[in-house]
Amino acid sequence: MALFQATITITLRSAILDVQGKTVEHALHALGFTTVQHVRIGKYITLELEATDSTEALSLCNQMSEQLLANPVIEDYTVTIEQLHR
Amino acid sequence: MALFQATITITLRSAILDVQGKTVEHALHALGFTTVQHVRIGKYITLELEATDSTEALSLCNQMSEQLLANPVIEDYTVTIEQLHR
Repeated sequence: MALFQATITITLRSAILDVQGKTVEHALHALGFTTVQHVRIGKYITLELEATDSTEALSLCNQMSEQLLANPVIEDYTVTIEQLHR
Repeated sequence: MALFQATITITLRSAILDVQGKTVEHALHALGFTTVQHVRIGKYITLELEATDSTEALSLCNQMSEQLLANPVIEDYTVTIEQLHR
């Protein structure tokens, strides 16, 4: 078994209104950052896991995302895997 | 002025206990993902902004992060800039 570092980003689908992003956008405008637009706020998850190879690590992360981390109805996710050497 | 896409990730500093991450880690263990460890949950922000060049775009994003997006006392942030061609 090898140790892998996974980075999972979870973002609202583009068709879904991002209320938190809109709020931050208005706050940035109020602070003088007037050219800012299309602010979207998602989650950035990092974790370590053991797997036999990177294919299994990726598969496990996809399962975690589907079952717990993301809401597949309104969110998209990406997974990046990197092997850690101990 | 050119249009830039910025990606800002905001993570809790490693010395700060990530309560949300710990909770998710326990939930993943309960679901059978028993080798998962060191779960950390941060924010993943994307936005578009206008600037004269990528140096100014990066500088603006650093200012936004310091003033509003991140809490510099307990969080670190990274900014990635990419020029959009319209």
